[in-house]
Amino acid sequence: MHILILGAAGMVGRKLLERLARDGKLGRKPITKATLTDIVKPAAPKNCPFPCTARAVDFSKPGAAAKLLADRPDVIFHLAAIVSGEAEADFDKGYRINLDGTYRLFEAIRAVGEDYHPRVIFTSSIAVFGAPFPDAIPDDFHETPLTSYGAQKAIGELLLADYSRKGIFDGVGIRLPTICVRPGAPNKAASGFFSNIIREPLAGHEAVLPVSEDVMHWHASPRSAVGFLVHAATIDTKKIGPRRNLTMPGLAVTVGEQIEALRKVAGDKVVARIKRRPDKTIQKIVGGWARRFDEHRATALGFKAEKSFEEIIRVHIDDELGGKIA
Amino acid sequence: MHILILGAAGMVGRKLLERLARDGKLGRKPITKATLTDIVKPAAPKNCPFPCTARAVDFSKPGAAAKLLADRPDVIFHLAAIVSGEAEADFDKGYRINLDGTYRLFEAIRAVGEDYHPRVIFTSSIAVFGAPFPDAIPDDFHETPLTSYGAQKAIGELLLADYSRKGIFDGVGIRLPTICVRPGAPNKAASGFFSNIIREPLAGHEAVLPVSEDVMHWHASPRSAVGFLVHAATIDTKKIGPRRNLTMPGLAVTVGEQIEALRKVAGDKVVARIKRRPDKTIQKIVGGWARRFDEHRATALGFKAEKSFEEIIRVHIDDELGGKIA
Repeated sequence: MHILILGAAGMVGRKLLERLARDGKLGRKPITKATLTDIVKPAAPKNCPFPCTARAVDFSKPGAAAKLLADRPDVIFHLAAIVSGEAEADFDKGYRINLDGTYRLFEAIRAVGEDYHPRVIFTSSIAVFGAPFPDAIPDDFHETPLTSYGAQKAIGELLLADYSRKGIFDGVGIRLPTICVRPGAPNKAASGFFSNIIREPLAGHEAVLPVSEDVMHWHASPRSAVGFLVHAATIDTKKIGPRRNLTMPGLAVTVGEQIEALRKVAGDKVVARIKRRPDKTIQKIVGGWARRFDEHRATALGFKAEKSFEEIIRVHIDDELGGKIA
Repeated sequence: MHILILGAAGMVGRKLLERLARDGKLGRKPITKATLTDIVKPAAPKNCPFPCTARAVDFSKPGAAAKLLADRPDVIFHLAAIVSGEAEADFDKGYRINLDGTYRLFEAIRAVGEDYHPRVIFTSSIAVFGAPFPDAIPDDFHETPLTSYGAQKAIGELLLADYSRKGIFDGVGIRLPTICVRPGAPNKAASGFFSNIIREPLAGHEAVLPVSEDVMHWHASPRSAVGFLVHAATIDTKKIGPRRNLTMPGLAVTVGEQIEALRKVAGDKVVARIKRRPDKTIQKIVGGWARRFDEHRATALGFKAEKSFEEIIRVHIDDELGGKIA
């Protein structure tokens, strides 16, 4: 089985590849080859049991996707995207990568021919939904995004469903929760603090909390995100039906609950590293975000996320800190 | 005020132009000029009080939309589309016109520059929704189309909302009901019988009814469709908010109710021209269609349709038959 990953240099792409390298297979089928691409050349994981070809490719350029499909990958993970803040600031770039790129990739699959119908996993986002929201947003809530990124992902979902309905490929779109705890350096995205207030204190550093403790949001660990991708790649899509895009399970917790979970797992000394510095701008942005989702459809289809925030913290300690707290 | 109509040779485009020529203005502003385009050269209406320039243009071709915008029309009616059946049969053509064409038009508006922000009216369709349906489909029902045409229109809606949110243009998307009574020759679309069973008997001809009388569907007259377009072109869009796409009002009636309305308006002799010839294929297609909508949002914004099917029939007799029944 040959795997193609677009966006393989990103955090989720790297973690997916580590998982595939560890498993050596996808479902019951051994992986014989992986092609990794991103705008920068992705790194192949160490001790990978199958050959990996890594390339720096802008898949949105005319003709680029066709080259990636030359040896007909069986499963395509399309994780490549310009993120929300950048797509909002750079209208051209967001549409070029997130819409034109996705559309060209799907068209390139169609151009391969009648007997090529790969599984395509598309990472969508809860940003396809726009306020005002009900308390728990159902899977079939109207997609009225309030960002260009959300609009581009919603369009990707429509294309994925229609190309799948026509039998051109066999697509599954998964709307990822906010990933927490995101590894790496603190970032300046408005959502960064959800991870910063856990990751930094656990590593012995201070972290800034810019919002009040009653802010609720929807989280899943990087390990769960990879689990969603693998499950989407192996599920019998007949069970999904024509509505190919699914809100993934997650955990709705308040910032206060995040902090109490951190206290249980790591103690008062670690929690004391969180510094409260209210920021009205961030509070306002985050105030318009979704709080929680009704994900019974994805859950019924076998997608699984963490059941408690302590579990999310422990995944981070296991996967990123070698089990140790500073 | 300069008006541009794309799709001006179609039935709705022609009727819109007749109305504008009769009014001589749009809202309170006199129309000084109209540019009419379609894939075939549209006809200008007789006795038109403003100059009309008609051109045969494939607006989906690179560069074509830019030419249409050269003298900066104030209001753009984007009615051009490959219809449902053809878009389903010809995947390339449907996507090229309905998606690429729309996207290129919107991008061409953006390319004109910072100080150009026309009103754009986009005709969407109830085909953006896909079964299974609730009894009355709300304005904010999830868009999971089951045809390529529906997917293309849903993508147009997302683009319209995002370009409007960014202030590039001032868009309103209107989801038209099935237009009834559609003038002209009987057509072979699966929905054709809804109009055929009224138009043909009124003109002294027989018509075939291929479905049972309990089939319910959602209708508005061509005159109402034009009214929606004019209202969308003149409404204060601040009242609409960011959700720029609206299900238009219509009338939910069963085929049986259509026939009884015809009897009231035109008598038993006319009704007797309807011949029942059940067609399982058409019955099955139509069985998956929407029956009725909750259109309170559009109604609250001042969009109006007929309140009875007799009214719809009388509009047809007035507008198409000079008030006479055969």
